[in-house]
Amino acid sequence: MRMYDIIERKRDGQSLTSDEIRFVVNGYTGGEIPDYQVSALLMAIFLQDMTEAERAELTTAMVESGDQMDLSAISGIKVDKHSTGGVGDTTTLILAPLVASLGVPVAKMSGRGLGHTGGTIDKLEAIPGFHVEITSDEFVDLVNQNKVAVVGQTGNLAPADKKLYSLRDVTATVNSIPLIASSIMSKKIASGTDAIVLDVKTGAGAFMKQFEEAKELARAMVSIGNHIGRNTMAVISDMSQPLGSAIGNALEVREAIDTLQGNGPHDLTELCLELGSQMVVLARKADTLDEAKERLTENLNNGKAFDHFKRFLASQGGDARVADHPELLPQSPCTFELLAKESGVVSKIVADNIGSAAMMLGAGRATKESKIDLSVGVVLHKKIGDAVNQGEPLLTIHASTTTVDRVKEKLYESIIIADGVVDTPPLIYDTITE
Amino acid sequence: MRMYDIIERKRDGQSLTSDEIRFVVNGYTGGEIPDYQVSALLMAIFLQDMTEAERAELTTAMVESGDQMDLSAISGIKVDKHSTGGVGDTTTLILAPLVASLGVPVAKMSGRGLGHTGGTIDKLEAIPGFHVEITSDEFVDLVNQNKVAVVGQTGNLAPADKKLYSLRDVTATVNSIPLIASSIMSKKIASGTDAIVLDVKTGAGAFMKQFEEAKELARAMVSIGNHIGRNTMAVISDMSQPLGSAIGNALEVREAIDTLQGNGPHDLTELCLELGSQMVVLARKADTLDEAKERLTENLNNGKAFDHFKRFLASQGGDARVADHPELLPQSPCTFELLAKESGVVSKIVADNIGSAAMMLGAGRATKESKIDLSVGVVLHKKIGDAVNQGEPLLTIHASTTTVDRVKEKLYESIIIADGVVDTPPLIYDTITE
Repeated sequence: MRMYDIIERKRDGQSLTSDEIRFVVNGYTGGEIPDYQVSALLMAIFLQDMTEAERAELTTAMVESGDQMDLSAISGIKVDKHSTGGVGDTTTLILAPLVASLGVPVAKMSGRGLGHTGGTIDKLEAIPGFHVEITSDEFVDLVNQNKVAVVGQTGNLAPADKKLYSLRDVTATVNSIPLIASSIMSKKIASGTDAIVLDVKTGAGAFMKQFEEAKELARAMVSIGNHIGRNTMAVISDMSQPLGSAIGNALEVREAIDTLQGNGPHDLTELCLELGSQMVVLARKADTLDEAKERLTENLNNGKAFDHFKRFLASQGGDARVADHPELLPQSPCTFELLAKESGVVSKIVADNIGSAAMMLGAGRATKESKIDLSVGVVLHKKIGDAVNQGEPLLTIHASTTTVDRVKEKLYESIIIADGVVDTPPLIYDTITE
Repeated sequence: MRMYDIIERKRDGQSLTSDEIRFVVNGYTGGEIPDYQVSALLMAIFLQDMTEAERAELTTAMVESGDQMDLSAISGIKVDKHSTGGVGDTTTLILAPLVASLGVPVAKMSGRGLGHTGGTIDKLEAIPGFHVEITSDEFVDLVNQNKVAVVGQTGNLAPADKKLYSLRDVTATVNSIPLIASSIMSKKIASGTDAIVLDVKTGAGAFMKQFEEAKELARAMVSIGNHIGRNTMAVISDMSQPLGSAIGNALEVREAIDTLQGNGPHDLTELCLELGSQMVVLARKADTLDEAKERLTENLNNGKAFDHFKRFLASQGGDARVADHPELLPQSPCTFELLAKESGVVSKIVADNIGSAAMMLGAGRATKESKIDLSVGVVLHKKIGDAVNQGEPLLTIHASTTTVDRVKEKLYESIIIADGVVDTPPLIYDTITE
């Protein structure tokens, strides 16, 4: 087998065999195939695409290039939820204890935030004492005990993906559906889950700005998961405006606490119930989505989800008192209201710009090495479709300094107020099961 | 300017600017841009193509990456002829003295053969004493004196092309019209000629097997030449069967001698007159193609072209007596006739296989380092459309050994004899002037 022939075949729009894909992935990871041949192949894949079978083979080959988590000691069907990344997306903090409260084992491996999107681990670390550096054995024990645990990314998961991603990053081949889908799915599958619920974001604040692209990516990932024998489905949800009201680590924890007590923002609560029902059904803890949603809603209202959250915090060293006393969370010294300059209806809240403003305040990382401030961020008081009077606060800025003029400017640019009636964007655009 | 953005733009089917193309060519030649980014760009060019303006810019940038021959000391319009490579193509040996005999200055830079196609320098070296290692000054003087001289490839012509070609060769991006056309034209233009006649071969023995591909390549090269201000045209000629009868270095010199005396094979003579007339008109030594052809035919028949050939040989140290005594050329010790196994009409002479058979005899190089035997080769007695009786010789093998069974086998496989009427392929398919 020669790399040259493989490039040529893909260049000419042919499908690669399982053996050819393994040859490339293993040869590249092992250092036998040079970067310049792989980058030519990546560009050919970018422009000629891959079949569903090829995408599944690529994913499998990347999974097998490194360690695979063994979660077999956890009883029940393990279901993971993965979001393609958004602004103010604190669903994991709510979903994990919520579905665990119905007996679904949630063995969650999470990452830190980069750029304008936050990371679950950063948010959890806003809770004093909480830590994710636990061993595999502890992780398994915790999930068996409490049905929920979160661990930082450990082991050498899908090193082929890491190496390929670095090359894609410098050769303009990142933005390719088969390559994005196999990259995400390789890490999910290597993390050992039995079933996967994907939350694919679409809109200005998402990686996939257009619905059609988001749908294509969702379909690609669902196909890969199911090809490989992991029950997978996707929900396509809105990220034209931030989800919920809070953007910033401690602020989002506080919002998660409200939501787990049944007092969360409508959109965040709805999305958690939607994603949660899908997880509960995939875990076979309910027969229908309606039944699952009803029981999840019950547990939000009767305090069971909230209790589960406190147990989860304590089990990983966190100060569970923050649940009842959110004022124990890191708090920023300064707050500022952003007042509306005119009256009308909010027609746009450009999610990625709001995320960038939060990053300017110190809530997010520009590079992997950046330090972040867990206390800072933004809390929206208005969402798209809300009426606003001149002088009314649009949002509150939580800052560590008294000079926030540039942030204010960016925020003013990000919130558009219009005359007349404005259509509220739907929360969920589509559900993809195959 | 960033290489990433350039790759991305070409990936998305956009045209690159002159500055962007220079940035790539200079950056790659200078070692600042890594192979893996250039190979991604090459694949994007392969699949997204380049406009005529981009191709001309790429060619110019490659020309400017190295030395450029200065032929300004040669009086008159210098016209070069370039063939894309064929089997038994000895036109240069005939054309050079033929058009020189009408006063057209022929300052020819030639190469050696590789694979199943021969090289002009190898053929000339079959003439005892002839050498192409002359200085630029000698070269210019010889052309001014005799209107014709041939020099081996000297100087550092288009080093960017060399580096890019090496990368294309291992990334399946050789077979791309814009890249092939700019590669060929960069070397022609750097060699300093004023006008160019291209002989683009098509058929089984050519790089471009299909007429449509050959036409596309011809158009691409003509467009590049004219864009850069070098008067360029192309003839698309047949290479489904070998040109003329002889394949092998000394054998082709002998055939050239016959042709220069007006006794050459019909197809070879015709193609020389066609290409020659185009050269004469581009050099403004005749007003029309008809006039040029008439005068060239005259010089083939009245001995003037033949005399010019002898003067040309002597001027570069060659033994001009070979012109009148071809038996002085290297001769192989053994000859074998390949006898027809059946009667019928020759329907196919697969040119590349005949070339490979000659290579097996020692006439061609498998690698750049291979030694070749100037005396060996094949002389065809039948061409497509000729009737043949069982037992009649199809061709003569000139070999250095007595064991030629494998060569015979290959040759039998390459000549197909059919029943009934067979259409003779046209010699010239098309003429491209813009």
